[in-house]
Amino acid sequence: MRYAWLRELAVPVPETLKSPLEVAAFEARQAAERLRFAVDEKMGEGYAAEKTGDGYLVTGGTTGVLYGAYALLRALRLGEEPPRGAQFPRCSLRMLNCWDNMDGTIERGYAGRSLWLEGDAFAYDPGRVRQLGRMLASVGINVLCLNNVNVHAPAQQLIGDFLPDLAAFAGILRPFGVRLMVSVDFSMPMQCGLNTADPLDSRVQAWWRERAGIVYAAVPDLAGFLVKADSEHRPGPNAYGRDHAQGANMLARTLKPFGGVLVWRAFVYNCLQDWRDRAVDRPCAAYDTYMPLDGKFDDNVILQVKNGPYDFQVREPVSPLLLGLKNTAMAVEFQLAQEYTGHQIDLYAMPPLWREVIDAVGADSLRAMAAVGNLGRDENWTGHPFAALNLFAFGLFAWDPGSDPGALIDQWTRLTYDLPEDQRKTLAGLLLDSRAVYEKYTAPLGLCWMVQPGLHYGPNPYGYEFDAWGTYNRADRNGVGIDRTAAGTGYACQYPESLARLYSDPAACPENLLLFFHRLPYGHVMPDGRTLIQRIYDDHFDGCEQAYAMARALQTLDLPEPDRSEALARMEKQVKNAENWRDVINTFFYRFSGVEDSRERKIYE
Amino acid sequence: MRYAWLRELAVPVPETLKSPLEVAAFEARQAAERLRFAVDEKMGEGYAAEKTGDGYLVTGGTTGVLYGAYALLRALRLGEEPPRGAQFPRCSLRMLNCWDNMDGTIERGYAGRSLWLEGDAFAYDPGRVRQLGRMLASVGINVLCLNNVNVHAPAQQLIGDFLPDLAAFAGILRPFGVRLMVSVDFSMPMQCGLNTADPLDSRVQAWWRERAGIVYAAVPDLAGFLVKADSEHRPGPNAYGRDHAQGANMLARTLKPFGGVLVWRAFVYNCLQDWRDRAVDRPCAAYDTYMPLDGKFDDNVILQVKNGPYDFQVREPVSPLLLGLKNTAMAVEFQLAQEYTGHQIDLYAMPPLWREVIDAVGADSLRAMAAVGNLGRDENWTGHPFAALNLFAFGLFAWDPGSDPGALIDQWTRLTYDLPEDQRKTLAGLLLDSRAVYEKYTAPLGLCWMVQPGLHYGPNPYGYEFDAWGTYNRADRNGVGIDRTAAGTGYACQYPESLARLYSDPAACPENLLLFFHRLPYGHVMPDGRTLIQRIYDDHFDGCEQAYAMARALQTLDLPEPDRSEALARMEKQVKNAENWRDVINTFFYRFSGVEDSRERKIYE
Repeated sequence: MRYAWLRELAVPVPETLKSPLEVAAFEARQAAERLRFAVDEKMGEGYAAEKTGDGYLVTGGTTGVLYGAYALLRALRLGEEPPRGAQFPRCSLRMLNCWDNMDGTIERGYAGRSLWLEGDAFAYDPGRVRQLGRMLASVGINVLCLNNVNVHAPAQQLIGDFLPDLAAFAGILRPFGVRLMVSVDFSMPMQCGLNTADPLDSRVQAWWRERAGIVYAAVPDLAGFLVKADSEHRPGPNAYGRDHAQGANMLARTLKPFGGVLVWRAFVYNCLQDWRDRAVDRPCAAYDTYMPLDGKFDDNVILQVKNGPYDFQVREPVSPLLLGLKNTAMAVEFQLAQEYTGHQIDLYAMPPLWREVIDAVGADSLRAMAAVGNLGRDENWTGHPFAALNLFAFGLFAWDPGSDPGALIDQWTRLTYDLPEDQRKTLAGLLLDSRAVYEKYTAPLGLCWMVQPGLHYGPNPYGYEFDAWGTYNRADRNGVGIDRTAAGTGYACQYPESLARLYSDPAACPENLLLFFHRLPYGHVMPDGRTLIQRIYDDHFDGCEQAYAMARALQTLDLPEPDRSEALARMEKQVKNAENWRDVINTFFYRFSGVEDSRERKIYE
Repeated sequence: MRYAWLRELAVPVPETLKSPLEVAAFEARQAAERLRFAVDEKMGEGYAAEKTGDGYLVTGGTTGVLYGAYALLRALRLGEEPPRGAQFPRCSLRMLNCWDNMDGTIERGYAGRSLWLEGDAFAYDPGRVRQLGRMLASVGINVLCLNNVNVHAPAQQLIGDFLPDLAAFAGILRPFGVRLMVSVDFSMPMQCGLNTADPLDSRVQAWWRERAGIVYAAVPDLAGFLVKADSEHRPGPNAYGRDHAQGANMLARTLKPFGGVLVWRAFVYNCLQDWRDRAVDRPCAAYDTYMPLDGKFDDNVILQVKNGPYDFQVREPVSPLLLGLKNTAMAVEFQLAQEYTGHQIDLYAMPPLWREVIDAVGADSLRAMAAVGNLGRDENWTGHPFAALNLFAFGLFAWDPGSDPGALIDQWTRLTYDLPEDQRKTLAGLLLDSRAVYEKYTAPLGLCWMVQPGLHYGPNPYGYEFDAWGTYNRADRNGVGIDRTAAGTGYACQYPESLARLYSDPAACPENLLLFFHRLPYGHVMPDGRTLIQRIYDDHFDGCEQAYAMARALQTLDLPEPDRSEALARMEKQVKNAENWRDVINTFFYRFSGVEDSRERKIYE
């Protein structure tokens, strides 16, 4: 079994361990120094580590003691002192949302089949699940939502016929402080004899109350339910004229007696849009839907807001809903699975993205942080061995949203590989820059959705242009982009005034969002004097050159096998992908604009 | 059970019938007049019907007698005299290729799941299969290839573990003169212990010889094998440096002792093309591959040539391979399944297409005619009740490729519905015009592939533009189309000289192929004085108006239920589709050209 970072994870953890404290003690035995533990239940997930004569004493809550152990092991491995003083996580729920289906496939999975589901049943290697729990604990992730938010039959039965299996699975993860969450189907009562799923119907309420009781009898520490409702053809309360607060609160009240939370995804929009209709603008949808409900959710409802407002595009402005809600418990939802960001073939390290979002939103406004998982049955867990960085960093970032992206990346490279320092810096540099490079060769200046429809890898700049998903760039022979200012769709007005002003002015708008907020002619002159079209060409040529440079740099690294071969094989595909993006996007805009590249590089006709 | 045309088919045929003669006698008992039968084995599939004092005498070969019975029943139902003199089919093999998969799905199926496969096994209602056999016999179809040419596991085992089931299935169809054919996997020997499928390897040859013996022991009248090789990732002889004649002949020789034929699909092209490479041109591929092999195929090999040269597009020139081969037994391959032609939602009657192809090719040059089936488990067999026309007409057309499209359509409408004559004429008119209408709102002037990638329904004019399928239109701000003359890809030069000259001259080239053969500026003046761009706009507006008119006409018909509801529901979708095609294509070209519609109709920006 391969380990994704911390060396200590290489030794299998025995199945006899029953509590975080026992796990902590086991891990500690591998450390060079002597570690001792004291449990102080008041500390919950928190811990404090102090140097003693012959080693360290970690004091922490029931799970905090384990987090402390891993923090100490990381520090020792890095040759650093453990953090001073008591440490507590900023977000109480640090959640991995896994889009695993009962048939073993994973929606948007790029690392093989499900680690725990196959053939419409639970199917796993218990040792591997323990290893997974340990990996998650080692970076502080404490909730695993085990099934796809699109609940395909028979996944409804995870809270029905499959409950004994769910309980057994929960038991394996419990010593690692990882609690399960289940994605549920809002219409499940209708599959069980009722003729409605109306949240205000007393039979529906009674059905869910009874169901919650049965579920918590089987898994007493279940974190709660996750719901995708009234979104992309999923059932929801709107069918009964009820709003999302009514839908969410009904479910939340059934979980409340057991300490469970109801996580409600705010990813709601019209996915049957008519492209001819320029008044409807998909990024507006979440704000329009949920702002009127601010303050109407029960206190154990968490509204999980996808970032960005459109979807998980390479470059979007922060979701205005995250800035707007004042009286609603929120989680931000990121996506470790590289759906639009390179399919775990192309390098795309995410901490810089998270940093930007949290800088805009403020960590204090979040009760939880969620990420769509990037795991699968591949031997290296994440398809690309470097994609493990995103899982590692997400856990630590959710614990401390003040984390510096460069420091997280440094830490992962140092813990994972024994490389000479110059090579390690090269690797860390590759990773730190990887998002910017990917953005440069794929998404010009905030334009989104130029991907192959459905697949979401590789370029197809007009592939979604006339479709029903609300994902348009409106390129024509004169210009490109959508006016989202007050004069256009009005989306920019969803932001607080200073941001709205910034985004609404093409001269002030950040360049990387220029075409997200504005429709501009190809001759538009950018601050540096280049035209928009020249800038599109330059970015795509530059991005591809940068991919070549990354490939050359990767060659120089003495990575262990099979990581080296895996990384190099994927880099070869990335370079091809970058070339294709460069040529397709440049040709697309050349065909529309007729403008030649001022530097006379090759643009195909 | 619904019947698709001839009224007599409404009464279930008993399972006790064991031969075409018995079926003929059973059917005859339903006729108002007395029919008698005499078998003259020398006549094979032929028959002659003569009036006797109290009815008719049909003399025919073993299956000819059944074809004669149906011809007579059709004539009586139509109030016509049966054809005079002995009748023989022009094509000896009149084949339905069904793309059914073992899991029950049908590739490009639009009428529900497979009628005979489900859950990786045979699964059927024997009564329904008998009814199918009878439908096929009633129009002279004598071969049913029962599985997808893309042979997905476990379909290889149709000539292995599934042989007893195959034999039982064949037995049900035998009394109807329908013989089975099986699509086989060229690499099957490698799944059975050999380390090669090289057709020149004696072990491979021996393996297939033995296999053929086993297969024919189970199904002695099997028509033969159908093979898709070296095409769209299917295995084939090229992997071993062998050509397609070597591959086909090896298999054909194993079938020869049993009287079987080897049907080899000529649908071969590079499906991993680089869009940047303008020298490669997909429609050239079949001719380039097979002309050098003319005369090299054994006499029981039939080369099945897809029409058109590109794929089954709405409008293509006839395949030059069909015109070029002189010493090869050929089948033309049509597609009843409406993959690119409306998914059995939009009306698209195919006889006018076949007429054009056969007029160009000459029926005498064909040994066989094949059509990809449009059948499925839907109660009405073909999804759209009118789509049954295409199956009906294909059978009669393959029997007599001189048939007039209007007469075939008339016949189907009269046999299928009891409508007042004015309404019947309206229906026949709708059907006769349906292809032209569909072409008008979808495929401007011979441009192909402007469909949703993968799905192949609805418009996406640039969806395939940068993909690897070789399916480009190269639209830009100046013009559109591909130069396929000698000055361009040279495709036009594959035609006999007079046609090559015709196609190569934009002034002489048929308008409906203009952009197939030429790249032209939007301002190109057409013979009637309109510009190319105006003509694109006009066609799409006109095509949509014609769809509206069809919808209005359909409303006036007193069709029986559920046909009326089914047809109207589909027509509603067709109208939406036509509107979307009109608006997407017009907008696409407006965005590129910037030219306003001279008639100031609505073109979305």
